Amino acid sequence: MTAKEQVEQYLSGLYDQPVSQVLDDSMTYSLLAGGKRIRPVLLFSTLELFGVPADKGLKTAAAIEMIHTYSLIHDDLPAMDDDDYRRGKLTNHKVFGEAVAILAGDGLLTDSFHQISGDDSLTAEQRMKLITVVSGAAGSRGMVGGQMLDMVAEDKELTIDELKTVHRHKTGDLIRACFECAGIIADQSDAVIQKLVKIGGNFGLIFQIKDDILDVEGSFEKMGKSAGSDVSKDKSTYVSLLGLTGAKEAMQEMVTETEQMIHELSDGNASLLDLLHYITSREN
Amino acid sequence: MTAKEQVEQYLSGLYDQPVSQVLDDSMTYSLLAGGKRIRPVLLFSTLELFGVPADKGLKTAAAIEMIHTYSLIHDDLPAMDDDDYRRGKLTNHKVFGEAVAILAGDGLLTDSFHQISGDDSLTAEQRMKLITVVSGAAGSRGMVGGQMLDMVAEDKELTIDELKTVHRHKTGDLIRACFECAGIIADQSDAVIQKLVKIGGNFGLIFQIKDDILDVEGSFEKMGKSAGSDVSKDKSTYVSLLGLTGAKEAMQEMVTETEQMIHELSDGNASLLDLLHYITSREN
Repeated sequence: MTAKEQVEQYLSGLYDQPVSQVLDDSMTYSLLAGGKRIRPVLLFSTLELFGVPADKGLKTAAAIEMIHTYSLIHDDLPAMDDDDYRRGKLTNHKVFGEAVAILAGDGLLTDSFHQISGDDSLTAEQRMKLITVVSGAAGSRGMVGGQMLDMVAEDKELTIDELKTVHRHKTGDLIRACFECAGIIADQSDAVIQKLVKIGGNFGLIFQIKDDILDVEGSFEKMGKSAGSDVSKDKSTYVSLLGLTGAKEAMQEMVTETEQMIHELSDGNASLLDLLHYITSREN
Repeated sequence: MTAKEQVEQYLSGLYDQPVSQVLDDSMTYSLLAGGKRIRPVLLFSTLELFGVPADKGLKTAAAIEMIHTYSLIHDDLPAMDDDDYRRGKLTNHKVFGEAVAILAGDGLLTDSFHQISGDDSLTAEQRMKLITVVSGAAGSRGMVGGQMLDMVAEDKELTIDELKTVHRHKTGDLIRACFECAGIIADQSDAVIQKLVKIGGNFGLIFQIKDDILDVEGSFEKMGKSAGSDVSKDKSTYVSLLGLTGAKEAMQEMVTETEQMIHELSDGNASLLDLLHYITSREN
């Protein structure tokens, strides 16, 4: 079973014995809507660096995927991005209505911390550290703060540093958390965890630059949403600020730096490097 | 300084160094909108039963109040209850707009777990247990599940047992969690914690019955929202199912039972009993 399949299976068995069936249906609809599971795969590949089996990170990976899913549900709401499609499927509120979609997001977010706190394959100390990292990366000082910055920035020309700040929080912090969590689960030293934080930060930025490139170059079939949807909103992106060629060069530079950091940590472990190349060459 | 003042002071100093100023303004607006702080006060009074000072429960109490506040912000949204006023002030989305209000709720909820996981006056084991209790009480198996049940139940006549299930989750679980958390913070045995869970469950129900009574008897000045707002929506309430007299009798019966349980645990501690009487005699 691949790492992606392992997460898929775990998430599909997560919700039984509902308090409210429609709430569980709504949460499950988005949770199993066929995401790429990049974050869990990053976490597992980082664990692999230290010879720790994926199982040990399964609940934390599931929790991060639940948080990612809730953020998409809320992001798609009419009051936010007002999107009808996500990954080629109707968005949560188009199927279940806005009120249910708001609650489904709230439920997934809250339940994610229950996953980590209840993971008895880890010590209390580890679980506590994981929750500190994940809630910090997802909350008002992380992802939610970044979403707010992103919203305020619409229709505004940003500098490249401002754009980086938006993305460091909006998408970067949760991706960075996958690396940091893997370090905690693998009982690594603070020094190693700091290196993982740096690698994770780079992965997040690379991921975002690639997203901006795909938004210009991608197609609906491959992306599951309209290409150019950010451009049409006059949003600052890496492509709008650096040009398509400039964005690709900036990404490549960061990839090279990241490869080197992974080599330093791993003596040539392949899995994270493969992922780095997958992320930069993906078509959706 | 009273317990309420202590929480008020802590919450007012919570948000500095924002990632997004408008997000912090929005979170702080609702967080400091003059709530009664019933949940923190219940937690502190339960700690007092065991001779533990309020400080030790401050961060957990703040976390629970952040969760309560987020739930009100999301509840008031146009897609949900569509309320313009809360505690006599404009609701969050009326001041900041829907998108900001959604994110403010998400931020408060996420940050609440960061409060508990970072509370270094407690052991890792205690923090882990607290997060398990609080996330369980607030998530899809608790408050959020109950909100969903409540929404589905609108315009429907419920049985008294169905109504109790709605309220046990919607308002009861988080109130019950205050008692359970106090037991964990005070390092009590599982047996004592189970008694606290029962007392907490009763407090939650009493609180809700009183709310339903006030919704019929209260005035705008005292409630900060229109009296009769639930009645006008044809919602099942304790009053609509049991009549005003019946609801008052049911509440009194439960108060007597709860007084006895507190006596068993405390040899006559006064603070929780005072609170019980405050809750049943309050006018808003």
